[in-house]
Amino acid sequence: MTNNTHAGAHQEATIEADPTVPMISIHRDFAATPEQLFRAHTDPEVFARWIGPGSRRPTLTHWDATNGGSWSYQLDEGEDVQAFRGTFHTVRPDRIVQTFTWEGMPDAVALETMTFEDLGDGRTRLHAQSLCDSFEARDGWLRSGMEIGVNQGYAKLDGLLADGSL
Amino acid sequence: MTNNTHAGAHQEATIEADPTVPMISIHRDFAATPEQLFRAHTDPEVFARWIGPGSRRPTLTHWDATNGGSWSYQLDEGEDVQAFRGTFHTVRPDRIVQTFTWEGMPDAVALETMTFEDLGDGRTRLHAQSLCDSFEARDGWLRSGMEIGVNQGYAKLDGLLADGSL
Repeated sequence: MTNNTHAGAHQEATIEADPTVPMISIHRDFAATPEQLFRAHTDPEVFARWIGPGSRRPTLTHWDATNGGSWSYQLDEGEDVQAFRGTFHTVRPDRIVQTFTWEGMPDAVALETMTFEDLGDGRTRLHAQSLCDSFEARDGWLRSGMEIGVNQGYAKLDGLLADGSL
Repeated sequence: MTNNTHAGAHQEATIEADPTVPMISIHRDFAATPEQLFRAHTDPEVFARWIGPGSRRPTLTHWDATNGGSWSYQLDEGEDVQAFRGTFHTVRPDRIVQTFTWEGMPDAVALETMTFEDLGDGRTRLHAQSLCDSFEARDGWLRSGMEIGVNQGYAKLDGLLADGSL
């Protein structure tokens, strides 16, 4: 980890392009238990409070965080609405596997896997990988400015953890 | 296609390991319309009549072939039961995207995409790709004997098309 700062300090996620497969790997430490990070990704009321960049208002339009369930949400900024959808393949306390599509490119589907590594000191490392079906698609995501939404979203999640909301 | 034989003759699917991404690509021609191949993959009564090797009895234990739906089935051979499950991310007449897990390796998830190419003479080419998250996982599938189930299943589907069941 290159950004292993203390809780409360500004922290950015490590976002890496895998050299051998068309995957994006994200690593991010939180002042949280694995259970809290699991809840942050599965409880619709919590998820809707942190997902996406700070400029956009999230609305969950469907949410069934179970094995074989599915989800959809939109991120609004004034008149501009960006919609996303996917399925939940696996929902376990230690592992979430889901599909992900931005409705602007409805045939592009990523397979996302999240795991929660207990660091043993009240901190947990989130590992999130997104698998695409080509390097071109993966590199397109990396060029899309996705790091802004990732980092601003995780900063909002830091806030929910700090103020006892979660 | 290396196996472009006529309807009724013995035909094997082309099963290819992609050289650049951890994907298996399958191509197979059928004496069918795209609509018939779509139905073969989405109608539970039809699907249960052809999926898997001839030695195993398929039973669909859950089936909701819609966007955001999910599925599970088992293939029985006497006391030996092999179970599979996944989600349907996209179900459109021209495209099916689904996740796939063999319950014997519950953390291994493939992302499968099927398209139906109309060859214009009453024949349709099925393109099925399975994306894994590592080359090791992909190569494990290729070594598993999967071609037996693929080819015997598609031969059963040929039979359903030939006898007017579909």
